Amino acid sequence: MIEGVTLRVARAGYKAWERCDLTYVELAPGTVVAGVTTQSKCPSPEVEWCRDALPLGSARALVVNAGNANAFTGHRGRAAVEAIAARVANHLTCLPSDVFVSSTGVIGVPLPIDKAEAGLDAAFAAAPCGWQDAALTIGTTDTYPKGAQASAMIGDTRVMLVGIIKGSGMIAPDMATMLGYIFTDAAIEPALLQQMLSAANRRTFSCITVDSDTSTSDTVLAFATGKAGNAPLSSFDDAGADAFAAALSDLCRQLAHLVVRDGEGASKFIEIAVEGAVSDESAHRIGMSIANSPLVKTAIAGEDANWGRIVMAVGKAGEPAERDLLSIRFGDTQVASGGLALAGYDEAPVAAHLKGQDIRIGVDLGLGEGRATVWTCDLTHGYISINADYRS
Amino acid sequence: MIEGVTLRVARAGYKAWERCDLTYVELAPGTVVAGVTTQSKCPSPEVEWCRDALPLGSARALVVNAGNANAFTGHRGRAAVEAIAARVANHLTCLPSDVFVSSTGVIGVPLPIDKAEAGLDAAFAAAPCGWQDAALTIGTTDTYPKGAQASAMIGDTRVMLVGIIKGSGMIAPDMATMLGYIFTDAAIEPALLQQMLSAANRRTFSCITVDSDTSTSDTVLAFATGKAGNAPLSSFDDAGADAFAAALSDLCRQLAHLVVRDGEGASKFIEIAVEGAVSDESAHRIGMSIANSPLVKTAIAGEDANWGRIVMAVGKAGEPAERDLLSIRFGDTQVASGGLALAGYDEAPVAAHLKGQDIRIGVDLGLGEGRATVWTCDLTHGYISINADYRS
Repeated sequence: MIEGVTLRVARAGYKAWERCDLTYVELAPGTVVAGVTTQSKCPSPEVEWCRDALPLGSARALVVNAGNANAFTGHRGRAAVEAIAARVANHLTCLPSDVFVSSTGVIGVPLPIDKAEAGLDAAFAAAPCGWQDAALTIGTTDTYPKGAQASAMIGDTRVMLVGIIKGSGMIAPDMATMLGYIFTDAAIEPALLQQMLSAANRRTFSCITVDSDTSTSDTVLAFATGKAGNAPLSSFDDAGADAFAAALSDLCRQLAHLVVRDGEGASKFIEIAVEGAVSDESAHRIGMSIANSPLVKTAIAGEDANWGRIVMAVGKAGEPAERDLLSIRFGDTQVASGGLALAGYDEAPVAAHLKGQDIRIGVDLGLGEGRATVWTCDLTHGYISINADYRS
Repeated sequence: MIEGVTLRVARAGYKAWERCDLTYVELAPGTVVAGVTTQSKCPSPEVEWCRDALPLGSARALVVNAGNANAFTGHRGRAAVEAIAARVANHLTCLPSDVFVSSTGVIGVPLPIDKAEAGLDAAFAAAPCGWQDAALTIGTTDTYPKGAQASAMIGDTRVMLVGIIKGSGMIAPDMATMLGYIFTDAAIEPALLQQMLSAANRRTFSCITVDSDTSTSDTVLAFATGKAGNAPLSSFDDAGADAFAAALSDLCRQLAHLVVRDGEGASKFIEIAVEGAVSDESAHRIGMSIANSPLVKTAIAGEDANWGRIVMAVGKAGEPAERDLLSIRFGDTQVASGGLALAGYDEAPVAAHLKGQDIRIGVDLGLGEGRATVWTCDLTHGYISINADYRS
């Protein structure tokens, strides 16, 4: 429960399904907002709408449509977003730019305005619901609702943070994963909230991948209602700012991990820690090259300690690497080092580690101090089943 | 049949299988060679050996080992390559640098020298064989042998070109596909052969991808015995040079397409033609972004005209693109243009096209004159089955 945040869900019927698919979040007057959106060159009109509104820094509502991404729909898609914002603005007597909108689902079909408007009216009239209902309602191919929480002390005041997020395919966020929303009762200037969110994003959402495909609609928004009553934060030097930033980053990491764990078809969660690279950026690119390699991901699905495929993925990353300095670890066991397999390494703990659901891969380039950790999931028949028969 | 080229195969027993796995090609004295190899930062010792030998320009033999890539095996892997070259050099009374060596298979296990030497001795004593036996013997997960031929007139002399190649996973050659060998009886200077091969490579092998994973061992070598008796080619200005370059490029394209058609688990061959980009390089990167997208590839596997995923892949390529100028074609049918779906386009020919085995996708960026064509295959359960249970 975050004071100043009221959740409601309704059934707009964007698809022929028996579930709520419209989430409406009302935010108390004075709520500030920050956000990060996709780097795609073909963003959805929702993403463009949020980008235009974010610099104003204030928010009164969030609407999330599930089942239709409304992307690549030209002026008709834009008209749907404007209609939604206008209807909510009229309901709350606020500016349309105070209304944030996201949509997720199939690309290329304009969001039907009549269904959106009827859904909104149903939501306005609905009783408030809890986080789990909202997390369920923003989901599409997700197999479970995803939420997390954190808290921080600002002076003597404990502030709360809650986030909900959805995946679970088309996930290689170039700065934000599909759709994530963070709510806090902290009082904080929007510019500072934006700085903290952008920093957290670089180490969390930008470090995950399910299938290397970056969505047209990726959006993470953070809303702060200010209801906690703390002394408002306006700079990193303020007491409690570090604690709040740490809590926000922790929340983002929890949410990012939930998306990976529920990646389409995923049976295992994979953490890839790269060290010894020439820079942190280089380590990140090498980590993502491993995380996006279909051959590495299928090897993990097969519980196969095929570290040769990791060598391959390091080699193709285009970053400085010296074959004969490279070391590779599965779990806590070194399997290769100095350019060749470790003679007679104990395969038993490696096999046991790979049978688990949480896989850790360590790569040491042996070149410098650069490091990065990224997260992905394995690639299984489930991914093919979900995606080879999705639209039609 | 290329005069000056003698093929033999033998069973070295690199894996526990009942098939020949060592290919030995003897080349007449005076044979010249050109080649392109992987851009991987972790290349196999075979790739390093070939790179060192290529500048010398002459070749007397080629040895290809199947079942063990000998990559990431340190000094022991290097010693195996040196032992092979020495044994062949002794047999033919030539320089070790005249002996080209490739290996393909699992990474990280040193090639056993005793098996290689016994296999070579068996090959030296074997009767010559045909192209099909050699193409079969260099293969691993390939489901059929791959070869192609071309010819060209140089003056009054017809010269012949024959190529054999293998795939079929870890295919996103950054300049050459796994292992390909081209033989011609033309007389040509090695420097010119290298220029022609590099140019052909940029438009053929560098335009295919099966799974976006670039091998440690990619190698394409072209050998010219000079036995055709044509006036030797030494520059692009020589009579017949254009015809020979065209035949070489045609042969490379045939071989590249064969690799894609036999991509691991592939059920469909996909041609992606990008036009209207700001440059040819930009068109190539957009084409490869589409070709490497798991969501595009699974949609084609499902015979689903999900062009929204193509929009997504264009958007994530990081290249200039304007959503509202983009047009997309399946087969000969325009399905989207000007930033939205074409109202009431006829779905029947699209559905019929997608049921076929040869899929054509057209993308027009509407920005400039840049164009590129790339080729890939679909992503199916077969890929997962092959790669989730490969080593172990």
